[in-house]
Amino acid sequence: MSMEVIVVGAVALGPKAAVRLKRLRPEARVVMIDRDERISYGGCGIPYFISGDVSDPAQLMTTSFHMVRDAEFFRRAKGVEVLSRTEVLAVERPEKRVRIRSLVTGEESRLPYDKLVLATGSRPRRLGVPGEDLANVFTVSSLSEAIRIKETMTAGRVARAVVVGGGPIGLEIAAALADLWDIETTVIEIADQVLPGMIGPILAHMVQDHLAERGVEVLLAERALRLEGGGAVERVATDRRTIETDLVVVAVGVQPNADLAREAGLALTPRGAIQVNARFQTSDPDIYAGGDCIENVSLVTGGLVYTPMGSLANRQGRIIGTNLAGLEETFDGVVGSFILKIFDLTVAGAGLSLPRARAEGLEVLAVLVVQGDRAHFYPGMELLYLELIVERPGGRVLGIQGLSPQGEALATRVNAVAALLGHRPHARDVAQLELAYSPPYAMAMDVVNVLGNVAENTLAGLQEVVEVDEFARLLEGRESGQTLFLDVRGAQNAKAFVEAYGGRWMNIPQEELAERLGEVPRDQDLIVICNNGARSYEALLALKQAGLSSHNLQGGVGALKRWGWKIP
Amino acid sequence: MSMEVIVVGAVALGPKAAVRLKRLRPEARVVMIDRDERISYGGCGIPYFISGDVSDPAQLMTTSFHMVRDAEFFRRAKGVEVLSRTEVLAVERPEKRVRIRSLVTGEESRLPYDKLVLATGSRPRRLGVPGEDLANVFTVSSLSEAIRIKETMTAGRVARAVVVGGGPIGLEIAAALADLWDIETTVIEIADQVLPGMIGPILAHMVQDHLAERGVEVLLAERALRLEGGGAVERVATDRRTIETDLVVVAVGVQPNADLAREAGLALTPRGAIQVNARFQTSDPDIYAGGDCIENVSLVTGGLVYTPMGSLANRQGRIIGTNLAGLEETFDGVVGSFILKIFDLTVAGAGLSLPRARAEGLEVLAVLVVQGDRAHFYPGMELLYLELIVERPGGRVLGIQGLSPQGEALATRVNAVAALLGHRPHARDVAQLELAYSPPYAMAMDVVNVLGNVAENTLAGLQEVVEVDEFARLLEGRESGQTLFLDVRGAQNAKAFVEAYGGRWMNIPQEELAERLGEVPRDQDLIVICNNGARSYEALLALKQAGLSSHNLQGGVGALKRWGWKIP
Repeated sequence: MSMEVIVVGAVALGPKAAVRLKRLRPEARVVMIDRDERISYGGCGIPYFISGDVSDPAQLMTTSFHMVRDAEFFRRAKGVEVLSRTEVLAVERPEKRVRIRSLVTGEESRLPYDKLVLATGSRPRRLGVPGEDLANVFTVSSLSEAIRIKETMTAGRVARAVVVGGGPIGLEIAAALADLWDIETTVIEIADQVLPGMIGPILAHMVQDHLAERGVEVLLAERALRLEGGGAVERVATDRRTIETDLVVVAVGVQPNADLAREAGLALTPRGAIQVNARFQTSDPDIYAGGDCIENVSLVTGGLVYTPMGSLANRQGRIIGTNLAGLEETFDGVVGSFILKIFDLTVAGAGLSLPRARAEGLEVLAVLVVQGDRAHFYPGMELLYLELIVERPGGRVLGIQGLSPQGEALATRVNAVAALLGHRPHARDVAQLELAYSPPYAMAMDVVNVLGNVAENTLAGLQEVVEVDEFARLLEGRESGQTLFLDVRGAQNAKAFVEAYGGRWMNIPQEELAERLGEVPRDQDLIVICNNGARSYEALLALKQAGLSSHNLQGGVGALKRWGWKIP
Repeated sequence: MSMEVIVVGAVALGPKAAVRLKRLRPEARVVMIDRDERISYGGCGIPYFISGDVSDPAQLMTTSFHMVRDAEFFRRAKGVEVLSRTEVLAVERPEKRVRIRSLVTGEESRLPYDKLVLATGSRPRRLGVPGEDLANVFTVSSLSEAIRIKETMTAGRVARAVVVGGGPIGLEIAAALADLWDIETTVIEIADQVLPGMIGPILAHMVQDHLAERGVEVLLAERALRLEGGGAVERVATDRRTIETDLVVVAVGVQPNADLAREAGLALTPRGAIQVNARFQTSDPDIYAGGDCIENVSLVTGGLVYTPMGSLANRQGRIIGTNLAGLEETFDGVVGSFILKIFDLTVAGAGLSLPRARAEGLEVLAVLVVQGDRAHFYPGMELLYLELIVERPGGRVLGIQGLSPQGEALATRVNAVAALLGHRPHARDVAQLELAYSPPYAMAMDVVNVLGNVAENTLAGLQEVVEVDEFARLLEGRESGQTLFLDVRGAQNAKAFVEAYGGRWMNIPQEELAERLGEVPRDQDLIVICNNGARSYEALLALKQAGLSSHNLQGGVGALKRWGWKIP
């Protein structure tokens, strides 16, 4: 009558599945097994523990009501038995039992199960280069390792650090090292931008500029070849240079921990994750898996994506618990929402980025809008830099990414679009999104609606745009004399540009353009510029009406500044 | 060939429609007519002008690039002619012309149109009681009037104020008067809660408690019968008392300005708004209307709702402009998102509130969840108080409302659910909403997901709940001895309650409950309590397992405190 359930892994998904099952079926016997002594901790909090925002690792292991989530807690409060410091050696499916070994005593034994949950999570990818096992080379794979990193820094002999990997964890760790510990930090990223795959090149450049401002150097398109040193790491040799360092953090992503599943003969995905159905059953219906050891169905592409996230693990754990209890619940898939804080800048997104959409073979448009996060007359406004990824010519919205100093204001826009992404939205749906409005929280025409509007205008062929990076190249090459930069802002704003860029930068304020059309040369490639791309759009239409074609600088001078162009 | 378009009203929708049309069809001749000299201003900024957050009314009339949006601006920058201080007396549909009169010279004339836009907005409802025309009795219907209110206060003879109406504008104005001007402010509301229709009674009580803490008294279920005074208002007589006052603001809502349309024989809705189709055409296809003078289709109920909002006016104006230009664009409808700031508390919502759902004849459940807006270990966490309105037994989500000191964190959750509301979401869809997650911005199981989870649990009959207001009544009547309050928090938290409420308040921490079940009396009505309703839910399940039925206090002690219960 009483069901025996074994849960392998006790960090995020495992505990959630175990506890949900116990709530629905109190009579079930649930045993949770983990290699580590430290279980059920907030793994996503590790960068903030390193940065000092979270001072005590115990905080990551307590509930919101300050109770330590240890084996004793799970036994008493949740009725779940925990075997910590215990390794699962094999799943013996024919006999429906697992073979385990105590990492304390070395003793081996077997436990029978009716249902098994594999919450084996992920492990950090290795670089696969010589010297990776030197002292002071870390990954950020567990709280135990994070504590060792912090101990190393507290010991005070770390002046320089290298982070290998410019993904989210790498950048969070780099910011933490530089910010709290004042360590001279270099990030090495093999791709040609930071946060590859997650955001487009323009937003990535903005992130990199922010890192540079705060003293973190990022080396792009560069590969770490060797870690060198006697005992502890002393140098990182790349394909371009050698960097002296006292500490290396390898943050080149994680991969699903699927060894146990593979050895048990369960089906894996081509990428090596455990294959599951919408109820999280593996190819053996008595064995469930979820969280970082599986791949998810993308609600945008329909394909499988690897999205290791503590939040997904929690939600999926609950669904597994429901199914274990004999009720039926399915998971629809993911849109890949993310948010991260790098110094004073927050970056967030959902769905496909421009590079990822292109990698899917889609013809897309990236609409960049720069606009305030509240009414321009309300104090405390900050600019949001948002990119909407839209399929052309159909106009389907595939993703949104952006950045801002005010993270919550950014989250509001990204989350609203994320909520739509599973419903195959069109640019029109984003144009009509009804965000709650009042002056402290939005403009009457919110930036997210403007994104939809601009996407519609561009899809309809009302404007041709030039991106910030292309614009910067053209401005660099202005001496060629082929491009004229027409600044339609007020004279005050344009003055320094006109002076700096000589005859190539012309100023006619937008409201004077109709009267001064005759001054615009007809034999040049025109790029129209304002602070954010809105007035320049109007100017472009007026020029078109007069038979002059031109391009609009997407995001205007606002984007140009954030991108890192040194404004004269 | 060139089309003549007349736009009546130049605040929000009118300018947007005019400018969008000019962008798409630069050859169109567009004339915008308004009674006021002040046009195209941020009307929603008026409370913030009164509160001093916005110091200069000119700020409400400038663009984000500091350009005054006056007639000259529209002519030069937008190619739109403006006739301000001009009244439209009649629409002569057979002749397709409007009859106008200059409010400066009194001169009458006629203007022909091919297409006409009625952006006549709304006007404040009047109380309809004696004394409403006394000096120092204001509505907040225009920037001109707001300036007069502020002049009256600056003159310094206002010590006491009465605001009639506890809706959003009334509360914003009351907070502004009390906060900046230190005026002893009383709000009179005819309904039995503040923000009637917008939020449920429990959240309303929380808002009222916050107002009381900040010195604003709210009188509920009370009706203003007379305004009295010699020249200027001196007293407000209600059906219960007489209140001395130096200033009265009447904020009892607005109604559509549809006189011109009615007189022109256009179809109106039963509520007296101008009837339009999804393209905003009135019953005369050459006449469009939108914004505050129309009603919108609710995406939740399918019926018509009156949602006067500057943001809707802007979005609808653009769609009207598109249609005027000969392109086809439709508007889907509204979910009724709103957000407002009252002192340090932000209130937001979308869709149906509990009272409104009940008024629609629906059988509903209001799920209240109190949870932090970020990981509990990340600094700066504030609690969110969120209510999800769910149809029973089907589980369709009809609305969400909530409050929090951190407005953006609240907006993020409300906007994500608002984005879903048009897609007939189920509690399950809210449980699976994929908000961007990292510790500074969300918990691994975000509050919005918990709302969906709790709704599912309650719909499935896993728990019976008691609401805060009912709980407070039971706690008041505890001497009857029928209800036992079982506090499953730690002893530290429970101590003061056990002492204050004698034998009626019992403390058994949740993790000890399994072992101490024998201590729980079996002949009492049990209410289980923790800080937010989560541990008490687990306790309730354990009690049920032991054959004891109990109710869970929704939102726990967190909700009870915010609601205004004086914690011992």
